[in-house]
Amino acid sequence: MAQPDLIAPSILSADFARLGEEVDNVLAAGADIVHFDVMDNHYVPNLTIGPLVCEALRKHGVTAPIDVHLMVRPVDRIIPDFAKAGASYITFHPEASEHIDRTLQLIKGEGCKAGLVFNPATPLSYLDYVMDKVDMILLMSVNPGFGGQAFIPATLDKLREARKRIDESGREIRLEIDGGVKADNIREIKAAGADTFVAGSAIFGAANQDDPNRYDSIIRKMRDELAAA
Amino acid sequence: MAQPDLIAPSILSADFARLGEEVDNVLAAGADIVHFDVMDNHYVPNLTIGPLVCEALRKHGVTAPIDVHLMVRPVDRIIPDFAKAGASYITFHPEASEHIDRTLQLIKGEGCKAGLVFNPATPLSYLDYVMDKVDMILLMSVNPGFGGQAFIPATLDKLREARKRIDESGREIRLEIDGGVKADNIREIKAAGADTFVAGSAIFGAANQDDPNRYDSIIRKMRDELAAA
Amino acid sequence: MAQPDLIAPSILSADFARLGEEVDNVLAAGADIVHFDVMDNHYVPNLTIGPLVCEALRKHGVTAPIDVHLMVRPVDRIIPDFAKAGASYITFHPEASEHIDRTLQLIKGEGCKAGLVFNPATPLSYLDYVMDKVDMILLMSVNPGFGGQAFIPATLDKLREARKRIDESGREIRLEIDGGVKADNIREIKAAGADTFVAGSAIFGAANQDDPNRYDSIIRKMRDELAAA
Amino acid sequence: MAQPDLIAPSILSADFARLGEEVDNVLAAGADIVHFDVMDNHYVPNLTIGPLVCEALRKHGVTAPIDVHLMVRPVDRIIPDFAKAGASYITFHPEASEHIDRTLQLIKGEGCKAGLVFNPATPLSYLDYVMDKVDMILLMSVNPGFGGQAFIPATLDKLREARKRIDESGREIRLEIDGGVKADNIREIKAAGADTFVAGSAIFGAANQDDPNRYDSIIRKMRDELAAA
Amino acid sequence: MAQPDLIAPSILSADFARLGEEVDNVLAAGADIVHFDVMDNHYVPNLTIGPLVCEALRKHGVTAPIDVHLMVRPVDRIIPDFAKAGASYITFHPEASEHIDRTLQLIKGEGCKAGLVFNPATPLSYLDYVMDKVDMILLMSVNPGFGGQAFIPATLDKLREARKRIDESGREIRLEIDGGVKADNIREIKAAGADTFVAGSAIFGAANQDDPNRYDSIIRKMRDELAAA
Amino acid sequence: MAQPDLIAPSILSADFARLGEEVDNVLAAGADIVHFDVMDNHYVPNLTIGPLVCEALRKHGVTAPIDVHLMVRPVDRIIPDFAKAGASYITFHPEASEHIDRTLQLIKGEGCKAGLVFNPATPLSYLDYVMDKVDMILLMSVNPGFGGQAFIPATLDKLREARKRIDESGREIRLEIDGGVKADNIREIKAAGADTFVAGSAIFGAANQDDPNRYDSIIRKMRDELAAA
Repeated sequence: MAQPDLIAPSILSADFARLGEEVDNVLAAGADIVHFDVMDNHYVPNLTIGPLVCEALRKHGVTAPIDVHLMVRPVDRIIPDFAKAGASYITFHPEASEHIDRTLQLIKGEGCKAGLVFNPATPLSYLDYVMDKVDMILLMSVNPGFGGQAFIPATLDKLREARKRIDESGREIRLEIDGGVKADNIREIKAAGADTFVAGSAIFGAANQDDPNRYDSIIRKMRDELAAA
Repeated sequence: MAQPDLIAPSILSADFARLGEEVDNVLAAGADIVHFDVMDNHYVPNLTIGPLVCEALRKHGVTAPIDVHLMVRPVDRIIPDFAKAGASYITFHPEASEHIDRTLQLIKGEGCKAGLVFNPATPLSYLDYVMDKVDMILLMSVNPGFGGQAFIPATLDKLREARKRIDESGREIRLEIDGGVKADNIREIKAAGADTFVAGSAIFGAANQDDPNRYDSIIRKMRDELAAA
Repeated sequence: MAQPDLIAPSILSADFARLGEEVDNVLAAGADIVHFDVMDNHYVPNLTIGPLVCEALRKHGVTAPIDVHLMVRPVDRIIPDFAKAGASYITFHPEASEHIDRTLQLIKGEGCKAGLVFNPATPLSYLDYVMDKVDMILLMSVNPGFGGQAFIPATLDKLREARKRIDESGREIRLEIDGGVKADNIREIKAAGADTFVAGSAIFGAANQDDPNRYDSIIRKMRDELAAA
Repeated sequence: MAQPDLIAPSILSADFARLGEEVDNVLAAGADIVHFDVMDNHYVPNLTIGPLVCEALRKHGVTAPIDVHLMVRPVDRIIPDFAKAGASYITFHPEASEHIDRTLQLIKGEGCKAGLVFNPATPLSYLDYVMDKVDMILLMSVNPGFGGQAFIPATLDKLREARKRIDESGREIRLEIDGGVKADNIREIKAAGADTFVAGSAIFGAANQDDPNRYDSIIRKMRDELAAA
Repeated sequence: MAQPDLIAPSILSADFARLGEEVDNVLAAGADIVHFDVMDNHYVPNLTIGPLVCEALRKHGVTAPIDVHLMVRPVDRIIPDFAKAGASYITFHPEASEHIDRTLQLIKGEGCKAGLVFNPATPLSYLDYVMDKVDMILLMSVNPGFGGQAFIPATLDKLREARKRIDESGREIRLEIDGGVKADNIREIKAAGADTFVAGSAIFGAANQDDPNRYDSIIRKMRDELAAA
Repeated sequence: MAQPDLIAPSILSADFARLGEEVDNVLAAGADIVHFDVMDNHYVPNLTIGPLVCEALRKHGVTAPIDVHLMVRPVDRIIPDFAKAGASYITFHPEASEHIDRTLQLIKGEGCKAGLVFNPATPLSYLDYVMDKVDMILLMSVNPGFGGQAFIPATLDKLREARKRIDESGREIRLEIDGGVKADNIREIKAAGADTFVAGSAIFGAANQDDPNRYDSIIRKMRDELAAA
């Protein structure tokens, strides 16, 4: 009953001057979904990209799922804009919504899959009464919106607890992890229960910018590690 | 003593999947500066693009001035990020800062040119004690952050009043106009005192996307109108 | 070219257990429009009544204009609700909107007449660039949201300045006054330029609750004073 | 030791033009307490009614308990106003107060009974250290402040958990349910542990407005269902 | 009709470990009033001292006027606390209050003198309708809450305009200046219209901490300059 | 493995006119650490003291640990200021930070010890994933920021639960208690698991202000009680 593993490159680390090409290349290299980090300089101290960039990817021809992680507060106003712009998943932080159940319903009412994101210190008790409404649980293994952080080890236990909740629910819920995921720890992370893996600089960071196939090797390496788990 | 007219394409209307190429083309067609609209979904009901997109343009090789219009509240936290990302001008709304004089100093202390932006209904009295610190005055001729609006006629009088303040100051201050500017009204707008002209869909909207020279004719037409003013 | 004087009872002082009857009686007694004070416990330290009470009055059969004064912050979200609930005028405080011109357009786009409200200390400069968009200017002669205040005398000068702006505009704009208006000062207030007079406890306060015609005498007295001005 | 079941009509669905009469009628028909929903357009996207409407009911002669549900943020400032206006119970959302224990004490210090309200997704862990201070626990079975929603089934399990906490406390604490309660599900809801039942449109919605006894049948039907549980 | 000049040492620059002694010494040296800067880390990016420090000075025996400058937002909640703690003057920033006239009345109702503070870029139009209610006008000649700034020269013109408004009002209103005031510019500042002079590090900064008369010479020097103006 | 008990006088109850002397005396009397309560008039309805007072104590020569309890919201901006001002511990309320894990890291990155503070009603689940990052857990046994409250008895159970979490972690984490601690209940509080005891008026309140040794007896009494536990 396990779902296939998904690799989700975070486009914040791509080259924004040629974003369509970057996304084409990383998908051609085997990535599964596009991870799209939205920051509003209020919930986190940074401002990144909004619906019009998502829409541009769809117009450019991207058909892979786009997985929108909202690091914004409040959340409800911008959800219809992202749904219209082509988002597939929309996830948000429970602390950032006054009405979590309502926000989940709003996302699903717009035709998208819905999820909750947990900051490293956020308890999983926010899941107690909404397991029937989430399609994705995203655990942050770093603090979102701040640069240069390493994978927080306590997240492994948290993954195991989230996995247990998902298995007990009997529902198909993605368990996504974001922050410090690399080829050399992805196997251990999968073992703890994750099935969807966000990676930013690990994928986009080191490649030779003149080689159109430059993302193949890193994604292949991640796949190999996942297969070995 | 008049400064040369500047045409400032607003990249919000460009194709974000190939932004570097879009900016290259519009500058090659004769545009002078890149207008960069930052919205945070708090000061205006929309979220657009932040410092990392500005930085990507600089890395891509753009050397023209980048004119960052902050539609955010509060403003101070994000200014150093934009300065570091390569902004040339940074303008903000006086209602969105607790400490207008301080914010102007902060921008200049970061090595950028500083300006104030006036919403259509905002009085010019915010200029009373800072004329010695502004390098640009941007008058909005539509309400920022909302789509589909026409040029507000009352802005012409406001341009004349702002021009008078600038001339009396004896300083070199750009008088920029944003909202509903097109080839067929740009002459009248210049006559009222503007010298810097933001245009979004008027430039990016109608062009044939397969023609690398597609922005030449519209910009040439604007230039002709300005020359005739 | 002067418009007829309007008497606008503020229903905050009516009996809310039988509001329909109260409004019927006060209109039958000669009042012209229903003044409807909305407070949200944020812009002012009190919470009063919202759209559903306005709608109830329309369903009850009230056909007189309903003049909604929004003492709320922010203002835009609730405007469509009041338009749908039957509001005729919607006025708001310029300090409470990020985008005054846009809010005026929003109200008019919903089919209502729009206005700005000025707190006792708020300068009239907010009118500088929107005289072509306002249908009403409301000057507060007490501080809204706080009880037990007397008419602030400095409002008379402010009325004269607002009247001058209106006359120079050549447009039909109501000049409304709210706060401490009574039969014994209404003549002086009209002389200073007002043409629309809000009164709450002066009308509803003293009447005998068992007399259906109990509002006739006070409104007649106000009319007489206005006629004598 | 079980307390008697209470039926609590939500007056938001009554006719506000003749609210006193509506409340008289529904109490005469057998309702036990008056449910009073306060929204501030901040905690929820709607603005309803405040203390002056509560006070009007008391002046009108209503002696039944008035059960004030605060959907406002922040909460403390308005509590003394409602106590003075005649509230019997005051409940609030724990997410909306910085100091939950203090707010409970504030309510009780004003002479009212105090309670916490749980949004559909809010965990019950907010009860961990205040069971000795709550007189009522209100579980929302829809998202407050949004229209047209059905009873959320997961609330039944939540009711059972809240009932268990109450029984273990040994204290007399009301367990109230609000949202989508009707004659055809009220028996099941009671079985899950509720003893206080809010109903709005189920009571006020369908009745013939010219019949003073129009609420008798629906309330009798609810009573019969409760008796059969 | 001119009022005597007042020297107002800002105690933020004093030694907080022996504040009573510091204030005693500076008053003994000839200072007239104690300037007390309150920052809340919201209106300005710093948090300083609140009512309990003010109260401690009164308990210590300070009888000179205490001049409380509120750099806080919102302002109303803390005013009664400062009145009770012994404040003589309470001044606030008009942008930080929703209801400026009301806040002025609140201060005066608490038995204190009231004033408005103008940031360097804030227009004086906030004075238009409250000249009959202010006892002090404080012009900031630096941006409050940020360290290490020099006197902003444009403040001299602003002083002249404020002086003109005061003289035309015919009322006794203090015109205070704060920021970068020193012995070597105080004469010019007085000439521009100020009559109350805040100085922090200029007084407390350079003195020998073991000399109880250490503030005599600097204050005498300021007095001499003022006398020479 | 138990750590020694620490007595932490809260300087809010000291005489602020001679704070250095007060702190010297209370430390000489046997107190271990200085408890420093920071309120911003936003998270709690009071404004107390900020970094400059902390710095003054260090300059005065205080070398004991200074234990800064932040009752502010948001928290991150002021942390570096307190670190620089000489704070040893910095604790904050989890509800007041968007990014709890990040804030803990920020405090530790500044070289201070970090802790979480729990309001009386706040669940301990905020500790679930950060036990490896906290050096102190502070349980409030009154509601912070409000005067005149007694020790809340439910805190004893909460202490036992917190103690259990600490012991299971195997880490050296201080368990501090604040609110209504006195000589006559300190033994019971220690028995429940606390090892760090904040006391304000219990220490500073009753002493004869002319006796330099005035704090000896009360602290000795507390020590005796702790030894007897």
